Amino acid sequence: MPLITEAAAGVFVIAVTPFTPQGAIDYASLDSMVDFYLEKGASGLTLLGMMGEAPKLTGAESLAVVKRVLARVGGTTPIVVGVSAPGFAPMQELGSQVMDAGAAGVMVAPPSSVRTDDQVYSYFETAAAMLGDTPFVLQDYPLATGVQISTAVINRIVQALPTCVMLKHEDWPGLNKIGALRAASDRGEARRISILCGNGGIFLPEELSRGADGAMTGFAYPEMMVEVCKAHAAGDVERAHDLFDAYLPLARYELQPGLGLQIRKHILARRGVIASAALRAPAGRLSPGDLADIERLIARQERKLAELG
Amino acid sequence: MPLITEAAAGVFVIAVTPFTPQGAIDYASLDSMVDFYLEKGASGLTLLGMMGEAPKLTGAESLAVVKRVLARVGGTTPIVVGVSAPGFAPMQELGSQVMDAGAAGVMVAPPSSVRTDDQVYSYFETAAAMLGDTPFVLQDYPLATGVQISTAVINRIVQALPTCVMLKHEDWPGLNKIGALRAASDRGEARRISILCGNGGIFLPEELSRGADGAMTGFAYPEMMVEVCKAHAAGDVERAHDLFDAYLPLARYELQPGLGLQIRKHILARRGVIASAALRAPAGRLSPGDLADIERLIARQERKLAELG
Amino acid sequence: MPLITEAAAGVFVIAVTPFTPQGAIDYASLDSMVDFYLEKGASGLTLLGMMGEAPKLTGAESLAVVKRVLARVGGTTPIVVGVSAPGFAPMQELGSQVMDAGAAGVMVAPPSSVRTDDQVYSYFETAAAMLGDTPFVLQDYPLATGVQISTAVINRIVQALPTCVMLKHEDWPGLNKIGALRAASDRGEARRISILCGNGGIFLPEELSRGADGAMTGFAYPEMMVEVCKAHAAGDVERAHDLFDAYLPLARYELQPGLGLQIRKHILARRGVIASAALRAPAGRLSPGDLADIERLIARQERKLAELG
Amino acid sequence: MPLITEAAAGVFVIAVTPFTPQGAIDYASLDSMVDFYLEKGASGLTLLGMMGEAPKLTGAESLAVVKRVLARVGGTTPIVVGVSAPGFAPMQELGSQVMDAGAAGVMVAPPSSVRTDDQVYSYFETAAAMLGDTPFVLQDYPLATGVQISTAVINRIVQALPTCVMLKHEDWPGLNKIGALRAASDRGEARRISILCGNGGIFLPEELSRGADGAMTGFAYPEMMVEVCKAHAAGDVERAHDLFDAYLPLARYELQPGLGLQIRKHILARRGVIASAALRAPAGRLSPGDLADIERLIARQERKLAELG
Repeated sequence: MPLITEAAAGVFVIAVTPFTPQGAIDYASLDSMVDFYLEKGASGLTLLGMMGEAPKLTGAESLAVVKRVLARVGGTTPIVVGVSAPGFAPMQELGSQVMDAGAAGVMVAPPSSVRTDDQVYSYFETAAAMLGDTPFVLQDYPLATGVQISTAVINRIVQALPTCVMLKHEDWPGLNKIGALRAASDRGEARRISILCGNGGIFLPEELSRGADGAMTGFAYPEMMVEVCKAHAAGDVERAHDLFDAYLPLARYELQPGLGLQIRKHILARRGVIASAALRAPAGRLSPGDLADIERLIARQERKLAELG
Repeated sequence: MPLITEAAAGVFVIAVTPFTPQGAIDYASLDSMVDFYLEKGASGLTLLGMMGEAPKLTGAESLAVVKRVLARVGGTTPIVVGVSAPGFAPMQELGSQVMDAGAAGVMVAPPSSVRTDDQVYSYFETAAAMLGDTPFVLQDYPLATGVQISTAVINRIVQALPTCVMLKHEDWPGLNKIGALRAASDRGEARRISILCGNGGIFLPEELSRGADGAMTGFAYPEMMVEVCKAHAAGDVERAHDLFDAYLPLARYELQPGLGLQIRKHILARRGVIASAALRAPAGRLSPGDLADIERLIARQERKLAELG
Repeated sequence: MPLITEAAAGVFVIAVTPFTPQGAIDYASLDSMVDFYLEKGASGLTLLGMMGEAPKLTGAESLAVVKRVLARVGGTTPIVVGVSAPGFAPMQELGSQVMDAGAAGVMVAPPSSVRTDDQVYSYFETAAAMLGDTPFVLQDYPLATGVQISTAVINRIVQALPTCVMLKHEDWPGLNKIGALRAASDRGEARRISILCGNGGIFLPEELSRGADGAMTGFAYPEMMVEVCKAHAAGDVERAHDLFDAYLPLARYELQPGLGLQIRKHILARRGVIASAALRAPAGRLSPGDLADIERLIARQERKLAELG
Repeated sequence: MPLITEAAAGVFVIAVTPFTPQGAIDYASLDSMVDFYLEKGASGLTLLGMMGEAPKLTGAESLAVVKRVLARVGGTTPIVVGVSAPGFAPMQELGSQVMDAGAAGVMVAPPSSVRTDDQVYSYFETAAAMLGDTPFVLQDYPLATGVQISTAVINRIVQALPTCVMLKHEDWPGLNKIGALRAASDRGEARRISILCGNGGIFLPEELSRGADGAMTGFAYPEMMVEVCKAHAAGDVERAHDLFDAYLPLARYELQPGLGLQIRKHILARRGVIASAALRAPAGRLSPGDLADIERLIARQERKLAELG
């Protein structure tokens, strides 16, 4: 299995973890979901992310999910696995297990306790040492972690830690951070790494214009991200925006903290991608008002896409 | 000057505070901005909110801004003033000053130190006592304050404190909270108060469908909020969404934390509403990439509005 | 193995996890540490707490540590195991494993994301359901978790969840919370549960006066806590304070966030309880100044204890 | 009035603000409190600190308190005034007012929103620019502000901003930070500034050993801090610890977050220093158990001091 590198680009979909209504992992849906993502044009998949209900899985289940997905993609598609943990030993253990199983790399977010520049850097220095030669994705997601990582610290990590090959950029939206990182690598001050963007894709066209290589996030319509990236790569920026705008009302709706994953799973089940929209406890529940909103937004989205052709 | 009541509805625009490039308050632009907001259909204005750079003003300046706006609107439009402060004495002092000057009510957000239900309730109980018979807006904005206010606590405040006449709803987006509050007042369990929504308006059509009375937020195109509310009130929900969708790409862009106010002031200056886009220090600066994004988004927005008719 | 109940009292020492200088678990030191704690009069032990470097252990190591300690105490002493985790599945898995192995109960702290009263209650309701009939300790430690739990919420949990048998009271110092909980159970409004106090014991005499049943915390001289509890139980409150005061300068010094565990392990190694003071990475290092402070404080403590007789 | 400089040393007592039971500022008690602090050996006073109920004062009251104290000390004792504010304009306004009135310097803590090293530095850079040539104290109090300031950032501030003449060191307890700052100035890498320590004095002997110049904090027995500093300066470190240990049980008790100020004011009133222990709302209330604890601790303290001679 090839590893992720600084050259990674395109859309790495943050996969959900399908459950049965009884709360068991639904492996058949896991397979169909993988097929769906690949069919829609995903360049890679990311498992056990924050939106993958990773903390609700036992260690054994986490590994089983990764192995099932690896078997399904059959070595053709890079699989990144979230290994963030309160301590380094479980991170190292899971990292080693998934790399042995054939993953292409891992993703690490800092714990909320690190604050100063040196603390952030030291955290990743130790993480990189624990992970050995496994390539890793630096997840920069202040809204969820509470950790602000400056551009200078990212460059310091990139320069000192050669296994840091990708930034999952989720600093809402941090467009100028992308620009500053690209300017630093253009000036030769830092290695150029892959930058894939998060936040449910709701800044994707602008992120691509600033130098991002694609997206690593989730949305019930991953084809939006794939098509926007394609149009952008083809130089048709207005077309990229047209596509994006058609999906934006729903993408914005799905981005609601707390409720977003329920919306995403509901739509994936509605599209036939997974058998059930069930989340493991604790989970909220979509209200009739939420369901009505979703139906309206989907209908409007379909009309707009039809108009676009 | 009439006071705000539970019946308040429509769009209360969160006003910016215009400065000259040298950092002085630009009173002429304050006047033209007020005229612009009223001309676009604002039902009221809210001053000294978080997006009004209130903490950058001295006490004397705050009062001067309020008085200038009150003089400009001439008693026809209700003016709400943000009086949140680290302690109750400054809150009471400013509240009393602005009400004496003719404001229609004040707005209060809890400090980040309150956490439990009783702490939140007690905070507003004391605030209401300090404010006397001044009607106040409860600002529920967890993303900024870190304080989660449950529906039960809001209802407890509404029932116990008759001067709480409005909720500035900004619990991203908390659509089901609106529904729960309306259900409680429909069942007679709580007084029905005005609910005006925030978050830059990016959930406005759905909020109106759940029972909100309008919006209290800022956006460089306040006419979007006014027109969406009008179409919704007229029963044309699809038209409300059509209008909303045309503005959403830019509204989303303007909602960026940290950078959003610079974007808003830039566009207001570009529209001729205020003379300068200057913020008081500390302030970031829009990059060439930001400016290019804004131009593209405005051009696209104008095309879509033209198509809509 | 008997389970913990509402009647638990005395000192449950929060055990450290001994490592070799190379970072391996030092099982021989684990044995000698257990012997030491029991010899000093511990009524129970608590493993895998925040001060036990629990997040630095893999799942397999965590279980191995618990089993080794259970084997050493041989069923005579109740062992409580911290099972707090970002999600319920790992909590349930570890809880089930350690109870099968013979633990007397588990300890649960809420994640920092829960805020409102209902959120706190719901968290423990779900946790209790996941843990089945396992008795659990509610850990109330706002300084570490950021979660404020009101007395009313604790009583609600105690009334609704019969498996909640103990409070680890660590709300710095929350003496009046102890009083309020005892008053509620005295009035028959809530079940009387065991209250064991934390914070390194630095409020222990006052906590006992308010109705606490003992301590659940760590200190390099656990005999302090045991002797203070004994003197208090014997009605000699002044003697309890005399003993406490002799140890307080060092207890205060050991309570330093971040550095405290290094100090504790250093002294335990100095006392011959464990072979090495090593912590697993990430770990700070005691400076020459720290070591000089510790030597001075120990010498002074020994003089005062000698004077006390 | 002389200004504070890098050579400031001794004890700057953080003054409380006395109120009448009806909530008015008690200026007579303010005078007697000032006399008391000076009589006990204070080298300076700090007003409008976090423990001075500063946010509960209006702007006019804040200035009146400062002027009254300045009149009372008559130019012989340096008065530092806390000017931390959510924005720079109020900070500048209050700073300018109190310096005009004769204060010796001001104190600034960063807002909780600054996180990265550059953000912390920039905050102080702007604050220093706003304050002009007013000497200022950098307050480093992570437990209250949530802001971690690394030693490197402090040195950067000290080097770039000549008006930063003092550190109020309150990084619980950060003994090694003192050592690192002193080592840096010894090596000529940074200007040597005054370091006065906080945290209610509960690490004072150790802080002095690491190179601190004294204390800037509050305690109902400021003579403890003065005497500890004197004994330490005279080279009698054991005597410094003996004195410290006699007061430590009460100092620890007074340090309770939330309740500490009530305890301090209660004891100051009990000692006849101020007429009433009243706090302005919001304020808790000492329970009978708290009062009994305090009486016991004072009686024990008096016995120990009598033994010490």
